[in-house]
Amino acid sequence: MTHRIGILTGGGDAPGLNAVIRAVVLTAARCYGAEVVGIREGFDGLLSNAPPMVLNEASVRDLLPRGGTILGAVNRGSPFARRVERPDGTVEQVDVSQEALQRMDDLKLDALIVAGGDGTMAIASKLVQMGAKIVGVPKTIDNDISLTDVTFGFDTAIQTATEALDKLQTTAESHHRAMVLEVMGRNAGWIALKAGVAGGADAILLPEIPFDIDVVCQKIEDLRAAGRRYSLIVVAEGAHPVGGEQQYYIDGEGSASARLGGISFLVGNALQERADVDVRVTVLGHLQRGGQPTPHDRWLATRFGAAAVHLVHEHKWGQMVALRGETLMYVPMEEATRLKFVDPEGDFVRTARDLGIVFG
Amino acid sequence: MTHRIGILTGGGDAPGLNAVIRAVVLTAARCYGAEVVGIREGFDGLLSNAPPMVLNEASVRDLLPRGGTILGAVNRGSPFARRVERPDGTVEQVDVSQEALQRMDDLKLDALIVAGGDGTMAIASKLVQMGAKIVGVPKTIDNDISLTDVTFGFDTAIQTATEALDKLQTTAESHHRAMVLEVMGRNAGWIALKAGVAGGADAILLPEIPFDIDVVCQKIEDLRAAGRRYSLIVVAEGAHPVGGEQQYYIDGEGSASARLGGISFLVGNALQERADVDVRVTVLGHLQRGGQPTPHDRWLATRFGAAAVHLVHEHKWGQMVALRGETLMYVPMEEATRLKFVDPEGDFVRTARDLGIVFG
Amino acid sequence: MTHRIGILTGGGDAPGLNAVIRAVVLTAARCYGAEVVGIREGFDGLLSNAPPMVLNEASVRDLLPRGGTILGAVNRGSPFARRVERPDGTVEQVDVSQEALQRMDDLKLDALIVAGGDGTMAIASKLVQMGAKIVGVPKTIDNDISLTDVTFGFDTAIQTATEALDKLQTTAESHHRAMVLEVMGRNAGWIALKAGVAGGADAILLPEIPFDIDVVCQKIEDLRAAGRRYSLIVVAEGAHPVGGEQQYYIDGEGSASARLGGISFLVGNALQERADVDVRVTVLGHLQRGGQPTPHDRWLATRFGAAAVHLVHEHKWGQMVALRGETLMYVPMEEATRLKFVDPEGDFVRTARDLGIVFG
Amino acid sequence: MTHRIGILTGGGDAPGLNAVIRAVVLTAARCYGAEVVGIREGFDGLLSNAPPMVLNEASVRDLLPRGGTILGAVNRGSPFARRVERPDGTVEQVDVSQEALQRMDDLKLDALIVAGGDGTMAIASKLVQMGAKIVGVPKTIDNDISLTDVTFGFDTAIQTATEALDKLQTTAESHHRAMVLEVMGRNAGWIALKAGVAGGADAILLPEIPFDIDVVCQKIEDLRAAGRRYSLIVVAEGAHPVGGEQQYYIDGEGSASARLGGISFLVGNALQERADVDVRVTVLGHLQRGGQPTPHDRWLATRFGAAAVHLVHEHKWGQMVALRGETLMYVPMEEATRLKFVDPEGDFVRTARDLGIVFG
Repeated sequence: MTHRIGILTGGGDAPGLNAVIRAVVLTAARCYGAEVVGIREGFDGLLSNAPPMVLNEASVRDLLPRGGTILGAVNRGSPFARRVERPDGTVEQVDVSQEALQRMDDLKLDALIVAGGDGTMAIASKLVQMGAKIVGVPKTIDNDISLTDVTFGFDTAIQTATEALDKLQTTAESHHRAMVLEVMGRNAGWIALKAGVAGGADAILLPEIPFDIDVVCQKIEDLRAAGRRYSLIVVAEGAHPVGGEQQYYIDGEGSASARLGGISFLVGNALQERADVDVRVTVLGHLQRGGQPTPHDRWLATRFGAAAVHLVHEHKWGQMVALRGETLMYVPMEEATRLKFVDPEGDFVRTARDLGIVFG
Repeated sequence: MTHRIGILTGGGDAPGLNAVIRAVVLTAARCYGAEVVGIREGFDGLLSNAPPMVLNEASVRDLLPRGGTILGAVNRGSPFARRVERPDGTVEQVDVSQEALQRMDDLKLDALIVAGGDGTMAIASKLVQMGAKIVGVPKTIDNDISLTDVTFGFDTAIQTATEALDKLQTTAESHHRAMVLEVMGRNAGWIALKAGVAGGADAILLPEIPFDIDVVCQKIEDLRAAGRRYSLIVVAEGAHPVGGEQQYYIDGEGSASARLGGISFLVGNALQERADVDVRVTVLGHLQRGGQPTPHDRWLATRFGAAAVHLVHEHKWGQMVALRGETLMYVPMEEATRLKFVDPEGDFVRTARDLGIVFG
Repeated sequence: MTHRIGILTGGGDAPGLNAVIRAVVLTAARCYGAEVVGIREGFDGLLSNAPPMVLNEASVRDLLPRGGTILGAVNRGSPFARRVERPDGTVEQVDVSQEALQRMDDLKLDALIVAGGDGTMAIASKLVQMGAKIVGVPKTIDNDISLTDVTFGFDTAIQTATEALDKLQTTAESHHRAMVLEVMGRNAGWIALKAGVAGGADAILLPEIPFDIDVVCQKIEDLRAAGRRYSLIVVAEGAHPVGGEQQYYIDGEGSASARLGGISFLVGNALQERADVDVRVTVLGHLQRGGQPTPHDRWLATRFGAAAVHLVHEHKWGQMVALRGETLMYVPMEEATRLKFVDPEGDFVRTARDLGIVFG
Repeated sequence: MTHRIGILTGGGDAPGLNAVIRAVVLTAARCYGAEVVGIREGFDGLLSNAPPMVLNEASVRDLLPRGGTILGAVNRGSPFARRVERPDGTVEQVDVSQEALQRMDDLKLDALIVAGGDGTMAIASKLVQMGAKIVGVPKTIDNDISLTDVTFGFDTAIQTATEALDKLQTTAESHHRAMVLEVMGRNAGWIALKAGVAGGADAILLPEIPFDIDVVCQKIEDLRAAGRRYSLIVVAEGAHPVGGEQQYYIDGEGSASARLGGISFLVGNALQERADVDVRVTVLGHLQRGGQPTPHDRWLATRFGAAAVHLVHEHKWGQMVALRGETLMYVPMEEATRLKFVDPEGDFVRTARDLGIVFG
């Protein structure tokens, strides 16, 4: 019988994490009389002696519409490769996974629910192999986790990106400009694709389809010839030109500015030069992660949270909740670590092309 | 080969109809070089001599985010039972379906795309049996069409209803009130269920689950005992009490006010009397139909519109586009006329019950 | 020197009250090293022995964007006329104002800040005459308090009402309907006037300008003659027809439904009959009170809260903060109890008439 | 008598310009029976032979909520200093103001209404001195025009910036980050100040108050000491450090990326280094210009548009409409070219300091 469940949130935050926490607490209490404690800062919280956060109906009351995660998300690394600074100043990566297991015992956790992305699921999966009682909830605003049709946070990110396109459209039209909007998506272009179609983009550049800038220039010229003097271009941060194998995205260390934009500036400058058009670049950045989850994401996060508790009750360690169509499924965590990509020949891209959207 | 496609929108409007029209026009032009004309006011437009609306890229440019339908939606009845007023003042229902077919010929339509709900699909299906070349696009903000997981307009309605709950929550809490919100759903309670879960409702009353008002009163008292002095109750317009076979929804003729509320007032008054709580009732009404479609609905409507054109190209008369999971499907129109209900024992309701939501 | 300040919120809640509370707590702590305690449920909290709410930086951290008031607003009446039920079941109104003063002493309050409308200011003003150390912050979403140009909550209510008009517009246009929207304003029509202009209304019915329904019918016919087949009519709850001295607004006791709508149904039915148009009525009700305050209201509430603390520091008992243009002022509370009405001949109404809006 | 009024919009676009155009057309038609024609692309439209846009009730029907300007805003320079390319490739600035006056005659304009910022008003003022019949409507989302309390577009920009802060807050809190948000304001910091207060910023850096980065670092450390591990910093694009006379804002020619950010990166990098905190920078950019105007801005733009027509009727050439408190005023255009700055010692800044916000 399950008496005490731990929950942690790993990786970057996503709108809906707090709704998962709320659903876990309510379902555990009502269906199984179990209590829930929150582990802070992802797996780091299993490696410190900080007391866990006691969670009950009162403490989760206002969490449903609240963005972010009250459990925090400042990971310092996997328990299998934790950065440890030695007295002599050198840094080593140490396997402290046994400590994590021990801490779960010390906290008298009958089970642990982890909400996270592919990295978090990979860690959790290895801990399960060592005997840990863990079930998973998929989380990524990029929607690039295999085995689930959709993840919470994605719809909210789409909404933020589409609203940005709506805003850019009016000023683009007034000033006859080409507006470049960079959205999240280092490996997979789901946000760019869906927000691009919903926001009326003329070109969408994705990691999965290397682009030819001349195709985008041609599109701008075609639009102009047809009487439309502005254009909207959506660029996923992981997009890259044909033949450009290297990633243009720079995740600089020690520099706040280095994290901002990269490929979108290259695209913007190229358009400005070649297409004889006035260009402006906007990098949406962290705005996509924040804010209140949409009703869809609150609903999905709530379903995932409640289902995870049932999964615990059934002792399905190593399994992760997932959605297929409208149906909740259980799938092995380890398979979820494969990324899900936009199919360049698939139905979604074809629909966009039908409308005249170019992919470069 | 298809040269000229007609499009009409039947029944009540839904956010996303204009996005369907836009996608049809763009896809027809780009993929098949076909032109599109708009038939105004649903099937009525096939029974008048008013010229159709010429639609091209310029005329659909701003339609993506625009609510409603530029084609209008003032149906006066089915072509199979059209109300005709006789010179002597009597009113008769006349079968004018042959005229509708003839008009399609006169307009030189190679095909007709109809976007509508179960009633519209039933009419279209009968016309197809008479030889008409029609394909369908499902439309209902109630999401109660069989054979498709979801319809556009539903997500937008959910968002409007959830935002209303968010607003009511703050004032309910300040004044320690029970807030009753009536949402659409005469036959099926999808909006009430999904918005109720997303908006943190304490009770959800659906047509599919006859309610016992005492269960709702008990819930309010339980909340109060646990220290929460306010509550949120969502009521679908078609909800009814156990044993109350009759529909409380009154669709009065000739009276603007008669259309407003019904069951929600009964619920509100009963709570006020029995639960010793200060109650306020809000009827969301037509606010749910209006406004800009959400990004999700723009995306879905766009996919449906583009797919309908391909369906025309393949001469799949009598078929309707549909969505299963993330996959576009084609299904027979006539089967779409069966309604889709919330399963009282299903996963959705069970999740809500897990959280402590009562269904009366 | 001020060491301990009480704060209470009286009357109906308004978006921005929590921002006032936050600003009071932060300003008191930083500028004067004073602590703040919250009195619950308006003046009722001065008449119970319930402990006040201790407020500090941590407890007000998330209050800025939060609607409603954490102090509650369930008034049971003025301390000068408190409803008291006698053992024999009869109900009397008793003056318990001395108890309220005593309670302020017992709580060791050096001052009290009250945020409220005209009723609250009238009570506070009388208490000041009895020696209480009170300053005021004006609050009314109706914006009908004299001596201040604007109050917080009003901008938020305008936004909710304007968004409702935006939503109704799309469905009105699709169905060629006349949409009647009832908004708050029993005595003064500010919300109706400002939201009506911002939302593109064709007619606005205010308490200050008795209406002739035939003028509204004529407007609908003029629009139709000019090719526009829908119309939007905004009705303040306190509007009434020419010659109709009585108020149509019914604030029924013991009935949840009685509180809903009144005049808007009369208007809707009259239009339906006389103007040969399909009419729908929406009553916005409590949606106008709720939700997150707009940035403007957060800003204004913050300024008012901070200024009230300075007013306390200056011992300006009986004064209320106010805004004239962009300038913060101090005015006598008692004068604020006069209502501010829309001037039927003034500049605001004239601008609306210039655009073709009729006032009935 | 006025029969024909021209209208043009100069400078950058702002939400509300279309509402001005609508109000001008409706008021001209209804009050004075005058027709209105739109001059495209600001003063450039007076220097080309392109036909003006005929504006009537039908063509302005949907303009109220629409962002941007249908008249376009691609200025190529003042008529007093127009860039002209000579056959030999050299570029000269030529005074073509007489041509502009002549074109107004040729178009048979009895008057011209110009909506624009300080630059536009300076040009218009000089044309009036040459005999042109022009009245002005102030426009700047920066709110930095003297003689009017507020301009339309400003409230919308504040809303966009405040929503961005709301979004950044949730993710900042989850990840214990310092979030730097750059907003518009090269010369005046109104947007930064008002959005900063409304969005709960901890530090606000303005052009009017040179900042010391150590003060911001100290604030971050103070917050951390008090238990709050995240912070929000708003930076106006024209902010600069103490002693740093030079502007950090770089408006590069020929480079899309050069227009993005500058000072906010410097601030972000400095914080990252000195305050031992994880920093992320977001540049809001053109998102602030776009989108639907708020109800407040629709109302203000409508009042300004209607008032400008009355000003034309009264032959008040060289005057501009303005708002003081709630009162519409007329002021000389030429005086409006003086900028309005945030007073570092004024009431607004003091309120912010009262709350604990630092200005660097």
